[in-house]
Amino acid sequence: MKTAEQYIESIRELNATVYLFGKKVKSVPDDPILRPSLDAVARTYQMTTRPEYEDLMTDTSHLTGEKISRFTHVPMSVDDLVKKVRMVRLLASRIATCFQRCGGLDGMITMYHTTYEVDQQFGTQYHQRFRKWLEYMQKEDLFPTAGVMDPKGDRSLRPADQADKDLYLRVVEERQDGVVVCGAKAHQTGLTNAHELLVIPCRAMREHEKEYAIAFAVPSNTKGVTHIVGRQSCDTRRLESCRMDWGNVRYACVEGLTVFDHVFVPWDRVFLHGETQAPVRAMEIFGGTHRITSGGGCVVGSYDVWIGAAALVAEYNGLKNVEHIKHTISKMILDQQAIMGCAMDAAWEGAKAPSGGYLNNMLMGNVTKYLSSQTGFEMLKYLNEPAGGLPLTMPSEEDLRSKEIGQYVEKYLKGKAEVPTEYRMRIMRLIENMSVGNNHRLGELHGAGSPQTQIRYAYETCNLEYLKHLAKVAAGIEEEEELSLSPKKNGRLSKVSK
Amino acid sequence: MKTAEQYIESIRELNATVYLFGKKVKSVPDDPILRPSLDAVARTYQMTTRPEYEDLMTDTSHLTGEKISRFTHVPMSVDDLVKKVRMVRLLASRIATCFQRCGGLDGMITMYHTTYEVDQQFGTQYHQRFRKWLEYMQKEDLFPTAGVMDPKGDRSLRPADQADKDLYLRVVEERQDGVVVCGAKAHQTGLTNAHELLVIPCRAMREHEKEYAIAFAVPSNTKGVTHIVGRQSCDTRRLESCRMDWGNVRYACVEGLTVFDHVFVPWDRVFLHGETQAPVRAMEIFGGTHRITSGGGCVVGSYDVWIGAAALVAEYNGLKNVEHIKHTISKMILDQQAIMGCAMDAAWEGAKAPSGGYLNNMLMGNVTKYLSSQTGFEMLKYLNEPAGGLPLTMPSEEDLRSKEIGQYVEKYLKGKAEVPTEYRMRIMRLIENMSVGNNHRLGELHGAGSPQTQIRYAYETCNLEYLKHLAKVAAGIEEEEELSLSPKKNGRLSKVSK
Amino acid sequence: MKTAEQYIESIRELNATVYLFGKKVKSVPDDPILRPSLDAVARTYQMTTRPEYEDLMTDTSHLTGEKISRFTHVPMSVDDLVKKVRMVRLLASRIATCFQRCGGLDGMITMYHTTYEVDQQFGTQYHQRFRKWLEYMQKEDLFPTAGVMDPKGDRSLRPADQADKDLYLRVVEERQDGVVVCGAKAHQTGLTNAHELLVIPCRAMREHEKEYAIAFAVPSNTKGVTHIVGRQSCDTRRLESCRMDWGNVRYACVEGLTVFDHVFVPWDRVFLHGETQAPVRAMEIFGGTHRITSGGGCVVGSYDVWIGAAALVAEYNGLKNVEHIKHTISKMILDQQAIMGCAMDAAWEGAKAPSGGYLNNMLMGNVTKYLSSQTGFEMLKYLNEPAGGLPLTMPSEEDLRSKEIGQYVEKYLKGKAEVPTEYRMRIMRLIENMSVGNNHRLGELHGAGSPQTQIRYAYETCNLEYLKHLAKVAAGIEEEEELSLSPKKNGRLSKVSK
Amino acid sequence: MKTAEQYIESIRELNATVYLFGKKVKSVPDDPILRPSLDAVARTYQMTTRPEYEDLMTDTSHLTGEKISRFTHVPMSVDDLVKKVRMVRLLASRIATCFQRCGGLDGMITMYHTTYEVDQQFGTQYHQRFRKWLEYMQKEDLFPTAGVMDPKGDRSLRPADQADKDLYLRVVEERQDGVVVCGAKAHQTGLTNAHELLVIPCRAMREHEKEYAIAFAVPSNTKGVTHIVGRQSCDTRRLESCRMDWGNVRYACVEGLTVFDHVFVPWDRVFLHGETQAPVRAMEIFGGTHRITSGGGCVVGSYDVWIGAAALVAEYNGLKNVEHIKHTISKMILDQQAIMGCAMDAAWEGAKAPSGGYLNNMLMGNVTKYLSSQTGFEMLKYLNEPAGGLPLTMPSEEDLRSKEIGQYVEKYLKGKAEVPTEYRMRIMRLIENMSVGNNHRLGELHGAGSPQTQIRYAYETCNLEYLKHLAKVAAGIEEEEELSLSPKKNGRLSKVSK
Repeated sequence: MKTAEQYIESIRELNATVYLFGKKVKSVPDDPILRPSLDAVARTYQMTTRPEYEDLMTDTSHLTGEKISRFTHVPMSVDDLVKKVRMVRLLASRIATCFQRCGGLDGMITMYHTTYEVDQQFGTQYHQRFRKWLEYMQKEDLFPTAGVMDPKGDRSLRPADQADKDLYLRVVEERQDGVVVCGAKAHQTGLTNAHELLVIPCRAMREHEKEYAIAFAVPSNTKGVTHIVGRQSCDTRRLESCRMDWGNVRYACVEGLTVFDHVFVPWDRVFLHGETQAPVRAMEIFGGTHRITSGGGCVVGSYDVWIGAAALVAEYNGLKNVEHIKHTISKMILDQQAIMGCAMDAAWEGAKAPSGGYLNNMLMGNVTKYLSSQTGFEMLKYLNEPAGGLPLTMPSEEDLRSKEIGQYVEKYLKGKAEVPTEYRMRIMRLIENMSVGNNHRLGELHGAGSPQTQIRYAYETCNLEYLKHLAKVAAGIEEEEELSLSPKKNGRLSKVSK
Repeated sequence: MKTAEQYIESIRELNATVYLFGKKVKSVPDDPILRPSLDAVARTYQMTTRPEYEDLMTDTSHLTGEKISRFTHVPMSVDDLVKKVRMVRLLASRIATCFQRCGGLDGMITMYHTTYEVDQQFGTQYHQRFRKWLEYMQKEDLFPTAGVMDPKGDRSLRPADQADKDLYLRVVEERQDGVVVCGAKAHQTGLTNAHELLVIPCRAMREHEKEYAIAFAVPSNTKGVTHIVGRQSCDTRRLESCRMDWGNVRYACVEGLTVFDHVFVPWDRVFLHGETQAPVRAMEIFGGTHRITSGGGCVVGSYDVWIGAAALVAEYNGLKNVEHIKHTISKMILDQQAIMGCAMDAAWEGAKAPSGGYLNNMLMGNVTKYLSSQTGFEMLKYLNEPAGGLPLTMPSEEDLRSKEIGQYVEKYLKGKAEVPTEYRMRIMRLIENMSVGNNHRLGELHGAGSPQTQIRYAYETCNLEYLKHLAKVAAGIEEEEELSLSPKKNGRLSKVSK
Repeated sequence: MKTAEQYIESIRELNATVYLFGKKVKSVPDDPILRPSLDAVARTYQMTTRPEYEDLMTDTSHLTGEKISRFTHVPMSVDDLVKKVRMVRLLASRIATCFQRCGGLDGMITMYHTTYEVDQQFGTQYHQRFRKWLEYMQKEDLFPTAGVMDPKGDRSLRPADQADKDLYLRVVEERQDGVVVCGAKAHQTGLTNAHELLVIPCRAMREHEKEYAIAFAVPSNTKGVTHIVGRQSCDTRRLESCRMDWGNVRYACVEGLTVFDHVFVPWDRVFLHGETQAPVRAMEIFGGTHRITSGGGCVVGSYDVWIGAAALVAEYNGLKNVEHIKHTISKMILDQQAIMGCAMDAAWEGAKAPSGGYLNNMLMGNVTKYLSSQTGFEMLKYLNEPAGGLPLTMPSEEDLRSKEIGQYVEKYLKGKAEVPTEYRMRIMRLIENMSVGNNHRLGELHGAGSPQTQIRYAYETCNLEYLKHLAKVAAGIEEEEELSLSPKKNGRLSKVSK
Repeated sequence: MKTAEQYIESIRELNATVYLFGKKVKSVPDDPILRPSLDAVARTYQMTTRPEYEDLMTDTSHLTGEKISRFTHVPMSVDDLVKKVRMVRLLASRIATCFQRCGGLDGMITMYHTTYEVDQQFGTQYHQRFRKWLEYMQKEDLFPTAGVMDPKGDRSLRPADQADKDLYLRVVEERQDGVVVCGAKAHQTGLTNAHELLVIPCRAMREHEKEYAIAFAVPSNTKGVTHIVGRQSCDTRRLESCRMDWGNVRYACVEGLTVFDHVFVPWDRVFLHGETQAPVRAMEIFGGTHRITSGGGCVVGSYDVWIGAAALVAEYNGLKNVEHIKHTISKMILDQQAIMGCAMDAAWEGAKAPSGGYLNNMLMGNVTKYLSSQTGFEMLKYLNEPAGGLPLTMPSEEDLRSKEIGQYVEKYLKGKAEVPTEYRMRIMRLIENMSVGNNHRLGELHGAGSPQTQIRYAYETCNLEYLKHLAKVAAGIEEEEELSLSPKKNGRLSKVSK
């Protein structure tokens, strides 16, 4: 497995085409705005090599029997599913921002299962190809991004009805040795830090939209691929030398748009091609899986830092023993743990899928994400209650260091007498960073799927006929027919099979 | 194991002292107000004997190796904990009201562990006694209530400081053959339907309050024990012959006050006696355990019926495909499943306790109950949204049956043309029953512990030092000390041990 | 103006056809279940004659110049609108349940304006007729119910498409001297206590639905009119002699279904007849007006009692100075006052309508009701937090009075030593009454219009074009065009006129 | 009155001591980071001179009878209070960020009343002094900041107990011609754009804390005064030439810390000096008054832009007619209007104070702010729902303008075909700006007082005795004593006077 240093070098060597503020980036590791985001990923590589995290961060490949990073491992048991959630929480609590790797992992899991099931249905050979690519990823310990979201243009129109056909990524040419694709993938987390791009279609396609039913992987430096880094709140603070103002003094995340301009994909890297029924299943798997990492363990790990910050700032402000502040912190813990409970239960209730791999409970995956997306806004309030207004109006680190006015800042930003002013300022800045700065969690709203997708999933998968039967029995409308309509074995009610 | 009929006869024979509306009840099974509540318990006995529920509703006693009801089984594995939650959900969804037995079960689990741990600490012999009693309960398939809540009088005063010392149950005399107790237990669920009373102290005691640190079991017809049935919304509808107006046409629940007026308890039924440190641990176990049955699986099973009723009434009203009604039902499902997720995770993360039995994760138990107590009020709104106002203003079944005006009721309470008016009325009545009638869930607020207890538990058990350390590291205040302060193995953070 | 006694006698004399539990009621004032509801209305008559309430409860008729009850007064100024809200709050806080008269008042206001506007548009003569009837109502000091809600049958179908055409009230015959109508009105508040029925259509009609566009008034004892009293939670407790268990020891409310079976209406009491455009305007006025009485002042007055009960039970329980209980009570006050603020502002921003009468701000009327319908569920939680579980499990008054067990009840339901047990029981029972008993406020959800109607009203009346313009200006998409799109004079933005 | 240009020149001439990033600012109007904030204030001056806003933005001085800006006008009628709220809303909706002037206005109102009342109580002469200064402010059309919040240091300690006595601003020397003060004021909105500093103490003082009971005004360029500009999210984007990335392309706000290092204040500018009872009343007035401007009208005006942006982005995304998106926008309107209702009612219920000026209803002021602080987090969710993830991951304007990749951005950020890509990007950037950028509204949480202050105010001013009486009457515990405890005339219940 790669060390952190090897990982950084590998990204340097990759030298993918990256644009930032309209200019080509010479070297991702040497760009001051991009480096903290690369360091966040590097930290995951570093922790993978540390013996104390071995159990959570590594596993044995079911393909090769070799020890691999859990970030390239397809879960083969409930225990694997559980450890995945715990790993993600651990990393989020240590890095205190998005570490960017869960999307790629969940994308690989998605395609592992989807290719298997598609092969079963259509007699295709995608699964074998995919395993080969996966084995390569495991061996080289590589990090892929999952390219899922198309730009989508006018959302009231289907892919084939868009004014510009490329607004959903598609095959524009079929060649003997592979296909040529055009389009883009939006909201690409970690796009400057990945070795590979794993592209998966994001919605149901109709028969006449075969060209859009395409999945594949290419190295992120492939010809025709351009990465355009998105702006973030406070992104340019990373150009400043005063790290206190970064809030999170080491790490950041990065997202953006990846464009595919006539990119060639050889056949052995094509994992779907025209199977229009497949994307719906792929999205069910990706959504249900990703919603307990990105929307589950990761959120919980971040909230470890939030709760710590809230408790710390209360202490620094002299509010430690104030009843309503303790109440606020308690609610943060209860809200956080409810998300953890759902994410973990999704894992505990995982089951073997046709491919032989394990998938977590899909409904609970959706429940987890829905809960975390709704809770986040209340949590933002809680985080700021003990802090007071300083995260929003506090002078800069340069003011603190200033010969002329540093004394004023030192004097008037003092909280509890025994706490250095600088400590209090740092924690305020971290709270700013997590509230409205680079690491705010507003992305939780749509990340891993907008709330509406979870609302719909819950409705569509619920066995309403069975529940209506229960109500009818209680009200005396129907007699009990216990045997014919019993819930599924796992205690979760699901759609009646026809 | 007892059949439903045997159970009912056993209660008749028991002939405990029960008062209802100031008068002594001659026979619980023959009292029209009390019978539906007895039937709810009888239904649990009936389902225990049905082969299709064998897996959930029975288990093998670790004391005798015999097959027993899960309602007398102390969980000996994670699987047992999981099945307990599922059993409770199953019953709540079928009976559509409180089936009254989870408190007694959780009380037995509590005392199984507490007696063991107290013996370890103090060299006492309670555990052996308790096992003997438990074996008897298993063999005879008996149902105990857990007498936990004292009347408490003035809540700003400790037990020993109350104007009337009996406001917390206590030992008033110690005899050679046992103790004599005075006091009462409030909010006794199922008090008229139980064979035994298992009394457990409900709060921390101080050294001078030894007389209050008393736990024991007595048959519910013991001399000096009086059960006073509490009033409930719509309780006297059960005197009416028109069952439609009951809402739930078969079952009800019952609660009340059990008074102990110089009740003698022989030594072999005394399970704590003066160990003032024990009640806190007992309450931690009882709370954490009961909060995933009463506040977890049971709530979820009830919501099965709620969701079914909401979907059904929407259909009967012609609102089935209305977008905002589907949205409401979706939210009911998501809220319900979040509670299930937490309850199940509490079970999945259960662990072996010193006694050898298994306890679910205590923090998640508290999280589950807190979530369900907060969610309930929103759920009440959701349930009534598709129903409209009829659950609150609808004529009686007698109006429907009336020769003079029945035709009007039939004509004007018609919903969708193909649905009989009576069906629509029945589901409206069920919704009334679950909203403000006999089976409303307002009791969820304080049942199994007021929200404030969960808020406090979360704060007190959280490893805030560790979380503050994480925030300090992110903000650059401290260097990482990964090894010294790592979270517990199970991924939940808990109090730093000293 | 009528005294309370005169009012009660007038209802006795009226002797309308009332059914309760399938049987004809001989005399409303002598029926034990119906009497407390009649007394609630009688109390409003009594307070009208008391000098200390003269300013709020009476006014000068703009028709006759005579002093009249505000319950028959059409507001002719902002001050009148403001006093209407305050009167309603006062009554709700004193009677502690629905006093039933605001619907009729708002119905009269609605038809006063609607008839005027319809006459202007169609050259009809309804307004003069209506004024004559209104003058009669003022002179005789009569109480009408507003018959608004039709049974509606299948809600996915329009009136004319229902299987049974009578599911919306309609004209079935036109005669020389008047019309004959069939149908019913549902959720009729105070139906057994009213002198007159004022019938108003409840939804938009199409050209072919002329027969449904009918408004009129008839005495409530008119031939062919049958009132069927709806069931309520705990309704039959009023048959019990122990008044403590009523919760509210004096008053109750009543609702039900009023059936019109070929009822003849003479022309001088017909206020709309075939003007299919009129009902939409009538519903806008009725909704916007009623939502600040029923959904505004009345809710606020009830919450006066709720907050008082919460504070009192906290005191009786010894919880008066507990921080989180004070927090709960504070939130009740803040939520209550926000509703009052919106209701009052709706009144303050009232304006003269074409008829010369004043209407409150319609948007704020909707905002008020929406807020109160959403707040109610949280308030229910708050009310019960300081109470604990006793409102749900407490023995009956008969238990307290029992010679055999009264001593137990007296002893163990004691709270703070200096508070008589009976007082504590009474307040618990009142909380039960307001939570799940006869006076629960669940009816707030759909009463005066379901939340969805307010949601739609807000969307449809908002000047979104203007607001989009503001956003475009801020984002640099458009230049400011201040003059062409300025908000309306009253500072509320409303739909752009074409 | 000053034109916008005159205002800007006056600030240039003032040349106060301002630090930004540790360096002295040469000229506020010429500083690229500070200028947009100055422009926001200048816009208020410009609108004051426009005839179409004359009614809202100007009034007649009750001191001089001359036409003045409403920003220097003490309300002398309910109409004035109402116009103040409407003016603030108007400006917030046009400037789309904090325009910084309401604090100063509310500070002047506060001291107008406080000085009068203190004079009455203590026979001092502050009011005359204050009127003279106010007349000067009106004549010169000057903008003062209100310096209210002290740094406070350790919040568990009183002013006099802090390790550093200056952590609350205080008099350090009393001279014949005036006083010398040391200390600082935090969270100073508009600190670089104000002509004067109006300093008011922020909390209750005890007898031995006389030195802290000091109020005064000094020009903002007074010797010893240093303004240190606070950091804000995305503050340095204003250094970039691409204005689209500013989000709000014209305006910003500014806050920071103002330090008083031995600042001399002549007697004629001292408005309180040692009257330790006065600050509590000043804070009641300032809180209650400011909470309907900063926390009322301003929030509502901002939400005009939010709602417009949400509706616009829905349209650009092709989501205009999607049911759940319309639902979201409806809720934004309802939430916004509830805040407006409370703020307006606070104004409508204003009353003449002893000084002859008018104060809005204080309780409703607190209710308004509490509501807006709680609503804000839900609004943040609503704003982002129709936007999708682009506000957080969208490329920069420089990417759009880039010769190399501009075509990609143009192509793939296209939404609805007829909407230019740039328009869609602009609205996304505005949403970013209002969510996590320079104009986010997180400051609403603590601005104008933390929620806890409103919670406490509600509890302390509520006439709980009267409400408990109402509950006792309903429950039959007490007879009605209507006259002795009647609510205040204005329909709001307030503290029983002794």
